Amino acid sequence: QENYWIKTDSLFKYVQPVASLQFWSTYTMGEKDQLTDNGPMESVQDRLNFLIRRARIGFKGKPYKKLSYAVMIQYDNMGKDRFSAVRGSTNTGTLGILDAYATWRISKNEMASLTVGYFHPQISRECVTGDLLVNSFDKSPTQAYIRQHITGKGYGRATGINLGGLTSKHLVTIDYNVGIFSNNTTSEEFTETSGKYWSPLVVDRVTFTVGDTEKKNYAINYDANNYYSKRKGITVGLNSSVQGKTDIFTSNYAGGFDVLFNYGRWNIDGEWMYMERHTEAQTYNMKAGHIRAGYNLIIKDKIFLEPCVMVTNFEGDQGAQFSGEDRMLDVGVNWYLNKKNCKLSLHYITQQGHGDNNYTDDITFKKGDFAGLAFVLLM
Amino acid sequence: QENYWIKTDSLFKYVQPVASLQFWSTYTMGEKDQLTDNGPMESVQDRLNFLIRRARIGFKGKPYKKLSYAVMIQYDNMGKDRFSAVRGSTNTGTLGILDAYATWRISKNEMASLTVGYFHPQISRECVTGDLLVNSFDKSPTQAYIRQHITGKGYGRATGINLGGLTSKHLVTIDYNVGIFSNNTTSEEFTETSGKYWSPLVVDRVTFTVGDTEKKNYAINYDANNYYSKRKGITVGLNSSVQGKTDIFTSNYAGGFDVLFNYGRWNIDGEWMYMERHTEAQTYNMKAGHIRAGYNLIIKDKIFLEPCVMVTNFEGDQGAQFSGEDRMLDVGVNWYLNKKNCKLSLHYITQQGHGDNNYTDDITFKKGDFAGLAFVLLM
Amino acid sequence: QENYWIKTDSLFKYVQPVASLQFWSTYTMGEKDQLTDNGPMESVQDRLNFLIRRARIGFKGKPYKKLSYAVMIQYDNMGKDRFSAVRGSTNTGTLGILDAYATWRISKNEMASLTVGYFHPQISRECVTGDLLVNSFDKSPTQAYIRQHITGKGYGRATGINLGGLTSKHLVTIDYNVGIFSNNTTSEEFTETSGKYWSPLVVDRVTFTVGDTEKKNYAINYDANNYYSKRKGITVGLNSSVQGKTDIFTSNYAGGFDVLFNYGRWNIDGEWMYMERHTEAQTYNMKAGHIRAGYNLIIKDKIFLEPCVMVTNFEGDQGAQFSGEDRMLDVGVNWYLNKKNCKLSLHYITQQGHGDNNYTDDITFKKGDFAGLAFVLLM
Repeated sequence: QENYWIKTDSLFKYVQPVASLQFWSTYTMGEKDQLTDNGPMESVQDRLNFLIRRARIGFKGKPYKKLSYAVMIQYDNMGKDRFSAVRGSTNTGTLGILDAYATWRISKNEMASLTVGYFHPQISRECVTGDLLVNSFDKSPTQAYIRQHITGKGYGRATGINLGGLTSKHLVTIDYNVGIFSNNTTSEEFTETSGKYWSPLVVDRVTFTVGDTEKKNYAINYDANNYYSKRKGITVGLNSSVQGKTDIFTSNYAGGFDVLFNYGRWNIDGEWMYMERHTEAQTYNMKAGHIRAGYNLIIKDKIFLEPCVMVTNFEGDQGAQFSGEDRMLDVGVNWYLNKKNCKLSLHYITQQGHGDNNYTDDITFKKGDFAGLAFVLLM
Repeated sequence: QENYWIKTDSLFKYVQPVASLQFWSTYTMGEKDQLTDNGPMESVQDRLNFLIRRARIGFKGKPYKKLSYAVMIQYDNMGKDRFSAVRGSTNTGTLGILDAYATWRISKNEMASLTVGYFHPQISRECVTGDLLVNSFDKSPTQAYIRQHITGKGYGRATGINLGGLTSKHLVTIDYNVGIFSNNTTSEEFTETSGKYWSPLVVDRVTFTVGDTEKKNYAINYDANNYYSKRKGITVGLNSSVQGKTDIFTSNYAGGFDVLFNYGRWNIDGEWMYMERHTEAQTYNMKAGHIRAGYNLIIKDKIFLEPCVMVTNFEGDQGAQFSGEDRMLDVGVNWYLNKKNCKLSLHYITQQGHGDNNYTDDITFKKGDFAGLAFVLLM
Repeated sequence: QENYWIKTDSLFKYVQPVASLQFWSTYTMGEKDQLTDNGPMESVQDRLNFLIRRARIGFKGKPYKKLSYAVMIQYDNMGKDRFSAVRGSTNTGTLGILDAYATWRISKNEMASLTVGYFHPQISRECVTGDLLVNSFDKSPTQAYIRQHITGKGYGRATGINLGGLTSKHLVTIDYNVGIFSNNTTSEEFTETSGKYWSPLVVDRVTFTVGDTEKKNYAINYDANNYYSKRKGITVGLNSSVQGKTDIFTSNYAGGFDVLFNYGRWNIDGEWMYMERHTEAQTYNMKAGHIRAGYNLIIKDKIFLEPCVMVTNFEGDQGAQFSGEDRMLDVGVNWYLNKKNCKLSLHYITQQGHGDNNYTDDITFKKGDFAGLAFVLLM
């Protein structure tokens, strides 16, 4: 082989397919919707709904020693009843690109990797953690506000370049990420452009870990927040994003912190994010956060359960992108059949709020409460 | 390994990709369409049309000993000419989810398996048989009426849970399925909800086989109706579905029977379904069925042919979802190059009818007749 | 095994997944757009844009000794800013079918193969060459006019049947392709039909090579135009297409020639196509072509560079599908890390023109110039 061709990875044979499925059976109570034009909100009948809450298929590979690649397709919310209490859009069969990126390790150790493509700007632990991996029934609804504020997209991905890495010494690990993105959702009319004015979106996140590391190898994906009683460690993350003048704001900020604490059987995590948007006339603030706790419980050496509780809170100024209050309480139990790869969950979710946000707009819809049984399968 | 993690299947290595293609060359004669607003139906020019009638790609796997998984994507009707005599919609490049489910065998034998996800409610042999596997040129057009009546969707899938199994004793085999589904197509306005009122869709099917079994292992998929002269057996299936009050009906029923008869070279199958829908004011009935016969013919020990004929019939009340009559006659020959996996077919299809259905609405279109050459490849 | 079943290929194990990614960072200067209804064209702010210019995933396989199969899905232009100077549409997450075909070799040698499905009618070297393989920053913008003229589709694919093959003797190789397609974009109103009137689209291409062959095995795909200084040969191609009466024209023609010349370090190619469309009232002509040259440069036996320049030109009659002039100059350098499979490129593109075409319509947009950094990864 000529010297000018880089060597392919000796283990690389083909692009490897991956697939996952999160199947939900939910029973919704107290959902309200505006059923006639300009009419009042009416209660719809309580209902059972089977849905594929999330499903992904994709390919990943590592063609060269330092270069890995992933592309993931989603067909989330298949079969979701528009009048169920579950948040998010409905889907009657559509597929979409979720992630498509390549990561090139540029240092000999884990200190520096460059990621390019369409992926999560690295901000907010809840946003960047794998969707099927959290121990609450669903991810905290607060992540929707954070994503919409920063990227303007429900899925929160953007195209750009991220530099990141991690380094450990004794009991302390530092992990960092800084990325620059072009954010095509800041036009008045067309979401596929940044409008007449353009500013880059710059996002960064640094985490400090004391005790067992959160992960040994650098990656832009974050694993389950349950380490099955194997980890004793705490990780604190500091997040920020900034974007300058565009058609829809003069500047836009987010900042906050998050915590992951695993100590034997206890799994506790939380996050608080502060969001600020300036227009020529005014400044709007939003705040979003959650706290979540689980406790690993092994029954007769055969059944690995985790009772879990989560509370979430969102508050937004009148006139902001989202306003009023949105609160959720999730209480349930997870049964890990094969760690995160095969899991059953039974949870009960209550929701309340007011204003104009994802819980209600006080005119056309108000989400109900629901009980849910989930089956998660990762392959 | 800890006792509380279930073991992965020893043969499981990766998610396996699958693909299939059904390529048609058709020549349409006598198609009529309304070419101008409020104008008369005019004859369009007879035409050749090449189309990918059906194409699927997907992944399947068996991560655990008793758990299997499948996801299938369709991009059917690529290149279909709107004015060809072939039924169904057109497609200029769109993909959609066809199936996504997991099946968990809960008994030690084949007696009981639970399937969850987005899949065919198990009713009507013609509906649940693999689309590329029938010995007529296409599946019977009657299945479109059955699917629309029960699930309100062209592809006939729904999200839900199905319990099924099979058991054999001597020459008799019984196969059963019963499923509950949430059916999001029963709102007046929005197909992505069941509307203000909700009722579950309950579907069941039982088959009785005398002689060779139809299949040895339980599955929610049904194979080709040609057993290449290896089977001597008859299978009779009884089907029913019921759904209660929703926004668009007060109750909705379907019932019927189907038969598959293979005796050496003869392959005969048929189906008759009766559909009933009650609204507050009235009751509407529809009936649909087909009969199909093929005869295996081996020429010089080298060419495996099957001459085949199918007649289909649909009748619906005035005011029902579909009304009038729709009849098709299909005469042709299949050349099995490698059983169902590689097949050529040459058929001639004539169609007639009246009313408001998939053959004609008596105003804007009337399907023509066509000759077709098909190439089917399964991988 | 019975004699009537064809044998599967001994090496065939499964459908093999493939993936590729072309990631661009561009900086656009001087883009103009109409930002208000009926307003003037205004300069938008110069901008950085990260985009996945092209990305493909798919499956391919060779189930039988003489039969191969490919299906390819695209999710091009993810993250493209509408106001960047890059041509083509925008994409916020949609997937589409790019190719789906099977090729059956009917001769013992490479003389004759039949391809059926949805694929490129074999005309114009620039159209049929792999999108991520050219040595200019992007494919020549002239291919868009050729494709639109012949098939009416941006991606230029159609459903049909192609017969092709190649044969070599001494220093001369002849490669031919002739195909018939049903072209569903010739209706006044509906692109999913050929309208009231139908005519087949017939396309052919013959190439003559002197010296090293362009490819040893017949295929409907064309490789990179850089042979990494290994080829000494010239290939000249003659192209033509013809279609008769449809709703939108009485007849439609294209014809032209293309050249690929590789001699050691030099890689030169070019193309000239003439397009003619007759309606009952009039005849419209368009012309499109490009010339492109690269020179392979190896630095210290470690870095394989190719400085490259391309000029393109389009001209169309007033009233034709596209009119006026559209010119591009591309100057840049490619760094081949692992031949075509891993490549970095840095180019500068200037564009100019007038009329109603892909560069400008003189009313709502005028493309800017841009500098671009590309990363291409094929797996």
